[in-house]
Amino acid sequence: MRWSQMFLPTLKEIPNEAEAVSHILMIRSGLVRKLTAGVYSYLPLGLKVLQKVENIIREEMNRKGAQEVLLPAIQPVELWGKSGRLKTLGEDMVKFTDRHKKINVLGPTHEEVVTLLVKNEVSSYRQLPLILYQIQTKFRDEARPRFGVIRSREFIMKDAYSFDATSEGLNFSYQKMYDAYCQIFSRCGLKFIPVEADTGVMGGDVSHEFMVLAENGEDKIVVCSQCGYAVSFARAECVEPKGNNKPADLKKLSEVKTPKVTSVEAVADFFKIKPDKLIKTMIYESDAKPIAVLVRGDHEINESKLKKVLKDSSLKLGDEKLIEKITKGPLGFSGPVGLSGIEIIADYALKNERDNVVGANKADAHLINANSGRDFKVDLWADLRNITDRDFCPKCARQIKIQPAIEIGHVFKLGTKYTTSFNAAYLDAEGRSSEILMGCYGIGVNRIIAASIEQNHDENGIIWPKHISPFDVLILPLNPDHTASQDTAVKIYEQLKERNIEALLDDRNVRAGIKFKDADLIGIPIQIIIGEKKLGQGKIEIKVRSTNERMEIAASESVNKITELVGEV
Amino acid sequence: MRWSQMFLPTLKEIPNEAEAVSHILMIRSGLVRKLTAGVYSYLPLGLKVLQKVENIIREEMNRKGAQEVLLPAIQPVELWGKSGRLKTLGEDMVKFTDRHKKINVLGPTHEEVVTLLVKNEVSSYRQLPLILYQIQTKFRDEARPRFGVIRSREFIMKDAYSFDATSEGLNFSYQKMYDAYCQIFSRCGLKFIPVEADTGVMGGDVSHEFMVLAENGEDKIVVCSQCGYAVSFARAECVEPKGNNKPADLKKLSEVKTPKVTSVEAVADFFKIKPDKLIKTMIYESDAKPIAVLVRGDHEINESKLKKVLKDSSLKLGDEKLIEKITKGPLGFSGPVGLSGIEIIADYALKNERDNVVGANKADAHLINANSGRDFKVDLWADLRNITDRDFCPKCARQIKIQPAIEIGHVFKLGTKYTTSFNAAYLDAEGRSSEILMGCYGIGVNRIIAASIEQNHDENGIIWPKHISPFDVLILPLNPDHTASQDTAVKIYEQLKERNIEALLDDRNVRAGIKFKDADLIGIPIQIIIGEKKLGQGKIEIKVRSTNERMEIAASESVNKITELVGEV
Repeated sequence: MRWSQMFLPTLKEIPNEAEAVSHILMIRSGLVRKLTAGVYSYLPLGLKVLQKVENIIREEMNRKGAQEVLLPAIQPVELWGKSGRLKTLGEDMVKFTDRHKKINVLGPTHEEVVTLLVKNEVSSYRQLPLILYQIQTKFRDEARPRFGVIRSREFIMKDAYSFDATSEGLNFSYQKMYDAYCQIFSRCGLKFIPVEADTGVMGGDVSHEFMVLAENGEDKIVVCSQCGYAVSFARAECVEPKGNNKPADLKKLSEVKTPKVTSVEAVADFFKIKPDKLIKTMIYESDAKPIAVLVRGDHEINESKLKKVLKDSSLKLGDEKLIEKITKGPLGFSGPVGLSGIEIIADYALKNERDNVVGANKADAHLINANSGRDFKVDLWADLRNITDRDFCPKCARQIKIQPAIEIGHVFKLGTKYTTSFNAAYLDAEGRSSEILMGCYGIGVNRIIAASIEQNHDENGIIWPKHISPFDVLILPLNPDHTASQDTAVKIYEQLKERNIEALLDDRNVRAGIKFKDADLIGIPIQIIIGEKKLGQGKIEIKVRSTNERMEIAASESVNKITELVGEV
Repeated sequence: MRWSQMFLPTLKEIPNEAEAVSHILMIRSGLVRKLTAGVYSYLPLGLKVLQKVENIIREEMNRKGAQEVLLPAIQPVELWGKSGRLKTLGEDMVKFTDRHKKINVLGPTHEEVVTLLVKNEVSSYRQLPLILYQIQTKFRDEARPRFGVIRSREFIMKDAYSFDATSEGLNFSYQKMYDAYCQIFSRCGLKFIPVEADTGVMGGDVSHEFMVLAENGEDKIVVCSQCGYAVSFARAECVEPKGNNKPADLKKLSEVKTPKVTSVEAVADFFKIKPDKLIKTMIYESDAKPIAVLVRGDHEINESKLKKVLKDSSLKLGDEKLIEKITKGPLGFSGPVGLSGIEIIADYALKNERDNVVGANKADAHLINANSGRDFKVDLWADLRNITDRDFCPKCARQIKIQPAIEIGHVFKLGTKYTTSFNAAYLDAEGRSSEILMGCYGIGVNRIIAASIEQNHDENGIIWPKHISPFDVLILPLNPDHTASQDTAVKIYEQLKERNIEALLDDRNVRAGIKFKDADLIGIPIQIIIGEKKLGQGKIEIKVRSTNERMEIAASESVNKITELVGEV
């Protein structure tokens, strides 16, 4: 491709709208343009990268025997009622009413559609196992689209679905996809970490997220630099402290007036203590029955853990009315002392606490020196909170680190969650009917591009990994008026084409400085620099974008040398 | 691919929902499955065909220097207000309100988005010409989705847009795309006819449709088997008859009571005459000023022609109130005699008519023996009607034929219709600003598949043209229990793979009869039949699907012979 003929508008300035470095560079290098909030057009250079990523995904999926399909974006809303996800996804779903007054959903994902398809076409164990996948546009009405293509309302997902007769089969399919994902992300040049993850709205038992460490990541992962343990923030286990013996010298419980002092910060200030000496008491509704949940003042409740402990996915925080009914006091002054007719569940971290401050269950009052066992009874101790960077690795007990990351892939063992809803069953060799076991596997295709840029850039621009670079080589004849430079450039360009090496020829009539700056900005791995002087000595220069290494070679040998380098980079 | 592992469900029965032969065969051969009205999933076999078509399109577009982009489906409704197409497309557009209460459109086409993009990025003549294209999912809320993927609510379109500085440039870009389309449809194995066409909601001056003759086509084209003239039904010119001299012996105008007789059929019945002796009088509103339009009783008004003659695209049929105001009579009894203060425009076909029946502009009465010139004045004669199969070719005067067809492509010279709305201009070499000239070019990708099946099938199933067949070769070892047959099949399969020939191996444990029937149904061009007996004699059979020609060849020579045949078919 010749740059003068390519629709490749680069920008010197940092665009106003962009926050993340990947977002800034995707706009500056002419990969994408924003149409409206969370909605982007891919320009030719960006689409080339996107298609390279898609092809890598396709190759690795096919290699594992997954079969490509294309499922519709438009889906009848009834399917989502059937799976129960109309509620769980809520406002995130794009819905529209058609001219026949029917409500349709624009698929944010395709478990419902693919399960229905397989239910209709698969009836025997002989048709299993089966893995279907697609690379397709998805829609999600994000409340706050941001970071360019990282969190957008229209995006491309590779979603795969496995169908198996047995749980061994599901495990095998899951492992196949897991391995394919590692292969895909490696080929895309990403440094990634697979972590155990929460199953969230997808459902199922087991899941892993594939995370790319990146400053602008909206997700968090927990890693132990000692033993390599890695887990999603939501799933990270907080270890139970040893021992639970209260010493004999506990201080005396007493009430203190605390007018209008309700937040953790305000209470800590008032008593001149650290937040970790407080106990937060929250009233939840679980299966329509209330429950009191205690965590340390400096900790956050992890509702996903709480739901699992209580085996109740519909659990939710109680409202003011419920709090007043249960505690007899107003919101902001709840505490465990004197609560009756309600189960109390407390986080492990409170086990070794003593002489804490708690709400007094009456307006404008707290209790000091509250102690579990003596002043209130805990019915169940459990891991109920989010991990913090002051916590320790559950595997090797070293201090863990919490790091921002971008989720680029997620795999789930769904089991029968959807096949039960849609009654998708198979007959085994003996003619017995069982539900099909499912797995689902997603990759955020656009996110791979952004994640790659987050990991591979410098102050001058993008540094593309080899396999997803839009071109292999950029040829820069510096002086547009110097015929010999131009001729040499075109000759190299044509010879590389014959060898199936994709080159971009910067034949624009602009200053050398602009060419150099744009070259670094768009980040093609190898730059061939053809200057008038050097060419006079029969030489051209090669610059490797990633290392800034420059080498002079004889013009006559350039094509062989470039071919060699393209293989190496 | 091995059939036993492929998700390829074939059906013996004709599905209830399907009318057109292409629709029936696409479902029976496991290419697609319906999710909901006008919405289809592509299964692996169907997607393979779709991707082959897409690749042909991509290659031919790239060959012409068009550059691929990917524009969003989600578009702010304001863009469509700006171009004025919110009204023209009306209920056909899918719209949704997002969580921030903003109205969005799901793009049925992308003139607005691409014009805005080019307006923002192109400012100089040096950046022109430019042709951008995409292959992308479009949405259209069809009132009556039908014929499977031919008229659907979600479909894939290749849409291209050209941008030029001069009208010579636009002509050149238009011709490039026209040529690319001929190349694409030829490579897809289609017999197609490019016809002059109406520009419709797209706007612009010149347009051509690419039509595939097919029994189940919803469009109509007009062709002259003599001179080859071909035109879309809506655009077909009706020639002006020669002469306009009324003879002297005209009959006397008189009124006849016709109680409740209003329709053309009823009036013809009442007077025992043919409908062509009637004159229909319609009152239209043109630029807020009414106009009377006359056509013969057996003809239909062509509003597109009428709009062009009157140079008024907002023209619409008058309502009852307007008719009463203008004619002083009720709806159903309008006629040209005695009309005052209104212009009368009449179709050419009435020029040589005499002694016609017309409405009397009063309830329950008609006039007989009405004659233009004597009884009423025609202000303008013009071609205002649809052509019929009793009409003659405007080029060679032979009788024309009207044939059903499927529109698979449409190209338009838009001129400045959109660039004016979006103020997309360029500066020329002298620094003067002018609007960019645009063309747009669409291909219905899914329709190519349906159209191909409409043209290429027999009573047993599909007959794929070479370049869009999902596989090159189908290998049929007939007896699953005969090891030598299976081994030979696998050997041929592996050897073909090495030669980059795509084969499907029917390794299913089913009867030979089922394999034969399915083979013809899915329509792969070459069948390799491996039977126990013949193989005992060192022979296998090859069947060419399109001709049903069968040939025996030595098993040892099979791979060379197949390679040769794949090249020829």
